[in-house]
Amino acid sequence: MSNRRTVFFISDRTGITVEMLGNSLLTQFEGIDFQRTTLPFVDTPEKIDQAIEQINAAGVRDGKRPIVLSSMVDDAMSGRLGTADALFLDFFQVFIAPLEAELGLKSTHAAGRSHGVTNSSAYLARIEAINYSLAHDDGQTTKDLKNAQVILVGVSRSGKTPTALYLALQFGIKAANFPLTPDDFGDGKLPLSLRPFRHKLFGLTIKPDRLTRIRSERRPESTYASLANCQFEIREAETMMQREGIPALDTTTRSIEEIATTIVHHAKLQRHLF
Amino acid sequence: MSNRRTVFFISDRTGITVEMLGNSLLTQFEGIDFQRTTLPFVDTPEKIDQAIEQINAAGVRDGKRPIVLSSMVDDAMSGRLGTADALFLDFFQVFIAPLEAELGLKSTHAAGRSHGVTNSSAYLARIEAINYSLAHDDGQTTKDLKNAQVILVGVSRSGKTPTALYLALQFGIKAANFPLTPDDFGDGKLPLSLRPFRHKLFGLTIKPDRLTRIRSERRPESTYASLANCQFEIREAETMMQREGIPALDTTTRSIEEIATTIVHHAKLQRHLF
Repeated sequence: MSNRRTVFFISDRTGITVEMLGNSLLTQFEGIDFQRTTLPFVDTPEKIDQAIEQINAAGVRDGKRPIVLSSMVDDAMSGRLGTADALFLDFFQVFIAPLEAELGLKSTHAAGRSHGVTNSSAYLARIEAINYSLAHDDGQTTKDLKNAQVILVGVSRSGKTPTALYLALQFGIKAANFPLTPDDFGDGKLPLSLRPFRHKLFGLTIKPDRLTRIRSERRPESTYASLANCQFEIREAETMMQREGIPALDTTTRSIEEIATTIVHHAKLQRHLF
Repeated sequence: MSNRRTVFFISDRTGITVEMLGNSLLTQFEGIDFQRTTLPFVDTPEKIDQAIEQINAAGVRDGKRPIVLSSMVDDAMSGRLGTADALFLDFFQVFIAPLEAELGLKSTHAAGRSHGVTNSSAYLARIEAINYSLAHDDGQTTKDLKNAQVILVGVSRSGKTPTALYLALQFGIKAANFPLTPDDFGDGKLPLSLRPFRHKLFGLTIKPDRLTRIRSERRPESTYASLANCQFEIREAETMMQREGIPALDTTTRSIEEIATTIVHHAKLQRHLF
């Protein structure tokens, strides 16, 4: 019998939080072949019953009861889902009771309050940050750099673009990014358009062997992707960062989430919570 | 005395999950002025002790003990943090025990396994999706649309760009987006470059009064932003979507997370988990 186990992430909303929570828990167990299914927007008795059918069928198929990680704001819905033949863990239900006791207040039990668009000014700030980061991707324009909250610098493919977009989407931060290319090295100076904004710069760097692998995906056998060129560019870029006092982070073994969070924290950026 | 209450989100990693979890819980309580602080990368005894100091100081200042929502993989670290004078809820500790019992397996208790870059093929797929969605933003190119997993269509400022970028970043989905403009209406046909990919199209629509407000932020007093023009464009776009059998979603009151999740679910898109 295989070591397969089916896991359901179920939510009355998007399921993104419970999925992230569940993912961080499941990665703690090795040697189990987790089959993951996310069911979002499970917010009616009919959808609950369909989910229960799916859960029970998976249990019969696997010969082991599934694991259900859920986030259901409504007590009755959560109770109904809990009748499935599964290990049932509802994070909302687990945490809301101690919070109610602590605050001396009943929760509103209203679904769908997070990620809301009800707070229109936060929504517009988020969209504005996304548009800003897009317009200032890869040094496309150096206009308006004074409005950036942070300007990421680094060699091509060091992780600037995904990080800048994540900063905008997740945290509502206006993040520009500017590539350091061989043209920028050699004169011992910061690129001209960056000089007024030295205090906003944040450097991303990367190990040469990883960079050469990433660049080779795009342009195999090119000088651009060669190890020697990657070593040269990185050495020059790191020298510039040290000389100019630009804080720098090695992205080699870090996820986009980790890079973005480190920058927010280190540069003490004003951020939003969506 | 004010109704202020300090909340700490504390994690040995990025804190993004615990922040999202905490946010969805706190929005359930009305009338309390929550002061939120996120402390990421709290992974040494020294950092724990600094956090405890900050927590206790906030409690003294507020006259009420703070709320700590945390995610600490290490038992000893979690125990140490729990000595702060606060309501202490650690989601990792709460959920890991029942999972260990169910699986008959000890967890590895290794921090930092989620969002990992160890899985290099998933990482490259994510970067590729981001680059794809960027290159295919706003109809910039119609080359390679055959490689899109979904093509978002809708009038200008209906939410296509943030949604496409979110699909790429959160789910690793290659999402193109293509604007429907007055030029595309009137001939009763789908824009030429979209015709081969009808089955990949997903429509975003929006209420005219919201669209006029969003467009006015960018171009106040313009014809483009006028209510009459917004009404016209939306009516024509919705007519096209109905005629062509394009599934459509009204984005007016939905967050980017909700729009993206609905599309993944509805169009049954193959996605990644990071």
